[in-house]
Amino acid sequence: MTAEIIAIGTEILLGDIVNTNASYLARELAALGINTYHQQVVGDNPQRVLEAFEEAYTRANLVLTTGGLGPTTDDLSKEMGARYFGVGLKEDPRARQNIEDILTKRKREITPNNWKQAMLPEGAEPLYNENGTAPGFILEMSGKMLIMMPGPPSEMKPMFDKQVKPFLAARSSAVMVSRTLHLCGVGESFVEHELKPMMDAMTNPTLAPYAKTGYVDLRITAKAQSQEEAAGMIHPVEEDIRKRFGSYVFGADGDTLEGALGQLLLDHNLKIATAESCTGGLLAGRLVNYPGISGAFEQGFITYSNEAKQKYLGVSEETLRLHGAVSWQTACEMARGAAEASGADVALSVTGIAGPEGGTPEKPVGLVYIGMYLLGDISYQECNYRKDRQGNRENTVVQAINMLRIALLEKFQ
Amino acid sequence: MTAEIIAIGTEILLGDIVNTNASYLARELAALGINTYHQQVVGDNPQRVLEAFEEAYTRANLVLTTGGLGPTTDDLSKEMGARYFGVGLKEDPRARQNIEDILTKRKREITPNNWKQAMLPEGAEPLYNENGTAPGFILEMSGKMLIMMPGPPSEMKPMFDKQVKPFLAARSSAVMVSRTLHLCGVGESFVEHELKPMMDAMTNPTLAPYAKTGYVDLRITAKAQSQEEAAGMIHPVEEDIRKRFGSYVFGADGDTLEGALGQLLLDHNLKIATAESCTGGLLAGRLVNYPGISGAFEQGFITYSNEAKQKYLGVSEETLRLHGAVSWQTACEMARGAAEASGADVALSVTGIAGPEGGTPEKPVGLVYIGMYLLGDISYQECNYRKDRQGNRENTVVQAINMLRIALLEKFQ
Repeated sequence: MTAEIIAIGTEILLGDIVNTNASYLARELAALGINTYHQQVVGDNPQRVLEAFEEAYTRANLVLTTGGLGPTTDDLSKEMGARYFGVGLKEDPRARQNIEDILTKRKREITPNNWKQAMLPEGAEPLYNENGTAPGFILEMSGKMLIMMPGPPSEMKPMFDKQVKPFLAARSSAVMVSRTLHLCGVGESFVEHELKPMMDAMTNPTLAPYAKTGYVDLRITAKAQSQEEAAGMIHPVEEDIRKRFGSYVFGADGDTLEGALGQLLLDHNLKIATAESCTGGLLAGRLVNYPGISGAFEQGFITYSNEAKQKYLGVSEETLRLHGAVSWQTACEMARGAAEASGADVALSVTGIAGPEGGTPEKPVGLVYIGMYLLGDISYQECNYRKDRQGNRENTVVQAINMLRIALLEKFQ
Repeated sequence: MTAEIIAIGTEILLGDIVNTNASYLARELAALGINTYHQQVVGDNPQRVLEAFEEAYTRANLVLTTGGLGPTTDDLSKEMGARYFGVGLKEDPRARQNIEDILTKRKREITPNNWKQAMLPEGAEPLYNENGTAPGFILEMSGKMLIMMPGPPSEMKPMFDKQVKPFLAARSSAVMVSRTLHLCGVGESFVEHELKPMMDAMTNPTLAPYAKTGYVDLRITAKAQSQEEAAGMIHPVEEDIRKRFGSYVFGADGDTLEGALGQLLLDHNLKIATAESCTGGLLAGRLVNYPGISGAFEQGFITYSNEAKQKYLGVSEETLRLHGAVSWQTACEMARGAAEASGADVALSVTGIAGPEGGTPEKPVGLVYIGMYLLGDISYQECNYRKDRQGNRENTVVQAINMLRIALLEKFQ
């Protein structure tokens, strides 16, 4: 099976959004052992969409599209897909139900153009959209397959993962299995330098590093005849990497950093509290991404002003006067104060200068102190980031979570 | 002039890297008033690269490529460009000088395959690469133009900005100017339904809606002879939209929702506090995205447990027992408590079931109550989302900020 990916959307042609769907699908198709030699992007223009289909099927027998399934009049990809296969559109009751469910759940007014989204090419199998009103579909005719999915990644990705991927996997002979290890605390260039000889020597399985915000992914990919065979090829590589990088490896595949920390806290029956200044709640918000966190997290403090730092965390007026709000001393007092006020066993605190304003020669933008209270012991880390306000705050959150994760692993090893 | 962008690189086809070059070039070309109707991605395969050129020139007279100019043997895009135009490759002394400059500056040894990069199609004008060893070039023949640039954005972008952009600007007569209005509180399909007749009637400027997380963008694009003329065409359309949607319009272009609220708070000298359960800090974190917020935001409460809700916000034990933590009653008490504990003038509270667990028939996953305290008045909104845990929380944050923004506009209009 040879696939071609077509992204439909004038906003991509105008450069308003980056076509991340294509790279996502390309990677997933490769993992399924399905070759892709060509990608296209076209605007919401019926004639050009139709031409894109005609071109694609001269090179591929499987075409996947993203976008153009919206309720608005410029969304005509579906009509062109039907025209290419010479079939009409008819309303699919399952698709209509999908739309009704979403809109009533959201208490949104149902406008006539919403029903346009329930129209599918005759003979198409609808793909349920759990996060939006645009159902996708799979259409198979005369040895060709067309899979159309909505454009928003939050709608396309679950649709592909839960419905399209299993469907395609059942059709593909060779399997390609990937396992992604997540590392936090080491830089990508260091990881790459460490593994370069190993990576160069590998053909199957392969190993590739990917930089993420604050951490690094290492993807091991094996091509084999069965899932079991592939898993057997991946295992020793994973073992090797885990041996090399130890506690820097915080998980694999769907694991998250906050999940790794959350699990550690639950395993050791520890309660955590947070005290944030420049991150303003993002750290606690990240911890709460982990659904099980309620067993370990009860409260957090967002103390943006000095007064709040004193009132809720008991940071001393003297510390603030002598060392300033952005200092390791304040960070440590915030961490201790958060733990004592909440009765938590561990606490993380953040104070820093996220920017763009507020920097000085002594305390430049990007200077952040992370305080940690761990069963009576207090420590801190000084970080110096060189990103924008948002980037500095996101990196701080990752760093803080990983600091505690590593500390817990060392304490309870 | 009609342009087509071709990205050359197997790593893009495999999804190992995202094709950000295409969106960058697309945006720049649009700003130059050069239409782009099609983008392609092909691997480092000579035959397919040649076919990509042949296809592109049936639709466009300007083709821009990124990638495939490296020193290795699988980089053959340049050869295919030359073959398409029926010319040979010859070494260009300026390109050779470029390579020497870079490698000596980097104190790197010059290997024979580096000189391969100095070979350009006959008649091509070299493009200096200040960050790499691969010169680009511009080739004009028989009414067609080919501009080939290296793949790494750090090399491509300065090459385009400093050399290609001025070159194309001199050729282009028209400019294209876009202005994007941000609307929150109305759905995309409703907006489109309202504006459909208007959009259908428009040709220049054009109007297009784009769905974002929790809000909608409306982009007005005008093609004209000058920036001023384009601005003059956009203005009346913007006025019309602002009149139709009133306070739903929270800003334009770079404006953010949190910035719009932050500015209102500062304008009216109001202090805000937050009290969060299921969003766990994301609401405060979003407010703090706005750099000026320190003048209005001093503290927030993350009360994940019932005990914390009682201790810090004074939510009554009876309310929690009778109505539960996820109820409008609790949301309202949280908002009042946050305002009173902090002495703030306004407060936002959030309590809900983000999922994936914790839902019941009466209180399903996605049920969220937002409480608002505004100078003594207390109100709430009930929301029913149908996204994953993260999506439910992000939509809640947007909804809460917009709820207060609208309330402030109404109160102080």
